[in-house]
Amino acid sequence: MIDGREKKGMKTKKALLNATITLIAEHGLEALSASSIAKKVNVSKASVFHHFDSMETIQQEAFIFAVVLMHEALEQIYQEAKETDSFADIMLKCFLFFMEENNKHYLNLINVQMQFVVKSSYDAEFEELIYGKESEKTPFDFFETLVDDFYGDKLDAKDLELVNDLLATYLSGFATFFISMANKEWLISLWKENIKMIEIYIQSLIEG
Amino acid sequence: MIDGREKKGMKTKKALLNATITLIAEHGLEALSASSIAKKVNVSKASVFHHFDSMETIQQEAFIFAVVLMHEALEQIYQEAKETDSFADIMLKCFLFFMEENNKHYLNLINVQMQFVVKSSYDAEFEELIYGKESEKTPFDFFETLVDDFYGDKLDAKDLELVNDLLATYLSGFATFFISMANKEWLISLWKENIKMIEIYIQSLIEG
Repeated sequence: MIDGREKKGMKTKKALLNATITLIAEHGLEALSASSIAKKVNVSKASVFHHFDSMETIQQEAFIFAVVLMHEALEQIYQEAKETDSFADIMLKCFLFFMEENNKHYLNLINVQMQFVVKSSYDAEFEELIYGKESEKTPFDFFETLVDDFYGDKLDAKDLELVNDLLATYLSGFATFFISMANKEWLISLWKENIKMIEIYIQSLIEG
Repeated sequence: MIDGREKKGMKTKKALLNATITLIAEHGLEALSASSIAKKVNVSKASVFHHFDSMETIQQEAFIFAVVLMHEALEQIYQEAKETDSFADIMLKCFLFFMEENNKHYLNLINVQMQFVVKSSYDAEFEELIYGKESEKTPFDFFETLVDDFYGDKLDAKDLELVNDLLATYLSGFATFFISMANKEWLISLWKENIKMIEIYIQSLIEG
């Protein structure tokens, strides 16, 4: 049973992780410190280390938290749309969600993940810290489910994997433009074209 | 006329820029310092600042240098292949070039560019420093030329732009996996599939 104190503790922990994500996205991973997180949540530095063993743990848990938040958001969009919408419509809805002014925190999640990818490329210890501990779900898993639900009975396993791998790559490409604050309208029209391209490709796999 | 001293100076400057790229790729942008660059080239710190006004100038010139090096490499592959190879073959050759063990420095160029993109996302001053001063050519320009040479007479201007923009996005996506040191064979087979996908898409644009 979760008592009041435990509940409050979880709320603080969540606030600390959200603050960590905002700080990384706004000032960069290198500028992150326990003091800056404490200040943002308006708690003491000791409170930060009450919830996390070390700065390493904070980064590790923030990564997993970011992945889970993203997955949950996508999953909710999907659950609300799956009965009525086409594959293309759902793909578009997912994209638009991250573009909305109100969902800046979700855009920050992408930024944080890109920073983690880049830092991992030259820091093997950091890579082990972040990617060594597997998260249960990733945003890529979500798109795998989406493709599988719509095309699982039309494509064989090898082709499904190809589509998923290509999609993962393209998502990373769009993520780069997301964080570069590229022109929104351009990005949306390009994403629409990307969906079209994928559908044409899937059709060629089905026929071929 | 370039005299001997000037020539030696240019050689040192080039060595400093190459060292800067290696250092950023291997230890991260934040760890870069004039001392580390000087040490790598075996010159004095004063010599570094003889060639560059400031650390900002070094980063700025390293960015432009990286872009030029990449463009030159791609251009050379293209010049050697354009008379005999198909669009798909040239696309593949470009990719394989960056994967070769001997061309690690070229993989570093991609890494440096990714780090610059990511840092620019949260540091407006840095963004202005790096992207404010336009480089004459970008690697994306190269692919634009490639697409134009092969499909310029079959696609209208709007469709050509679409293909180029999609290609730019996909290149960024593959760059993410490049620097993540993803499995090479997987990456190559995925790139081949990506080329196929683009060709199918171009065909659909031509027909439709």
